[in-house]
Amino acid sequence: MALILGVDPGSRKTGFGIINVVGSQHEYVSSGVIRLPVDQELPERIRVLCDSLSEIITLHCPQQVAVEQVFMAKNAGSALKLGQARGAVIAACVTQGLEVAEYSARQIKQAVVGTGAAKKEQVQLMVQTLLQLPDTPQEDAADALGAAICHAHTQASLINLSGVTRIRRGRLR
Amino acid sequence: MALILGVDPGSRKTGFGIINVVGSQHEYVSSGVIRLPVDQELPERIRVLCDSLSEIITLHCPQQVAVEQVFMAKNAGSALKLGQARGAVIAACVTQGLEVAEYSARQIKQAVVGTGAAKKEQVQLMVQTLLQLPDTPQEDAADALGAAICHAHTQASLINLSGVTRIRRGRLR
Repeated sequence: MALILGVDPGSRKTGFGIINVVGSQHEYVSSGVIRLPVDQELPERIRVLCDSLSEIITLHCPQQVAVEQVFMAKNAGSALKLGQARGAVIAACVTQGLEVAEYSARQIKQAVVGTGAAKKEQVQLMVQTLLQLPDTPQEDAADALGAAICHAHTQASLINLSGVTRIRRGRLR
Repeated sequence: MALILGVDPGSRKTGFGIINVVGSQHEYVSSGVIRLPVDQELPERIRVLCDSLSEIITLHCPQQVAVEQVFMAKNAGSALKLGQARGAVIAACVTQGLEVAEYSARQIKQAVVGTGAAKKEQVQLMVQTLLQLPDTPQEDAADALGAAICHAHTQASLINLSGVTRIRRGRLR
């Protein structure tokens, strides 16, 4: 059993989603969107983001964190804002002693939908299906849950791979 | 008396500098550069940055923080990296309950050298002179000390301004 927190950082809205991995099953735990006070200065926006993430971490005690890599912005100004949100999210998690893994939007789409070129709506629908949710999750929350699912898949592959390696080593001896 | 921590965030090196403001005098306390392990993944680099800042804050107990605004990068990739470092620095400070103010490079140069168009070397020399340092401080450390000096000037101006406002209000009554 492992609780995984997925985060989709944004300069206005940051999605989060928590899943519980039991064997090959993924159970939905919680998800939502942290809305930053855009009329406030950056330090205050970052304080709200860190406090909200801290509350979520304290409440659910995830063991691992998967953060979506920021989609390359069109201009330097947008990239700077996205980077600031991303740096704050990772800082809030690592200062609480959590391990953070990063996945590109393409990797997440591949893990959830089966193709890296999937559309946003396809991710939302597949996340709803995989986690047996009654409604379609909000876009940012779906991306965050997708990051958590992607991390669970990657971890499962690594465990399988290490199992194969052990057997091979056993045969060589 | 007020201890001010200045920070100049960067994706490879982050400068820091602490000054003690006693009346109109600025005393040097400490400064240096946090070098990030560039061969490591981003979460590990951010962990080193946050841990180092946390140590500095615990050791010196500054009351206020001044962070240099990132110079607009030439491309989106550089802006994203700089933004990540900046977001992590601000997150590390606000999660410790510190107030963070932001100043542009132009504002810092204006406060330290007297002109917003000053060169890096002029900032280093003026920081050395103002804080009576035996040697020229390293570039990033000088920028961080400059941010702290800029914050001290701004705070002093605000106090003077509020004094003037109080007198004017007194006259009006």
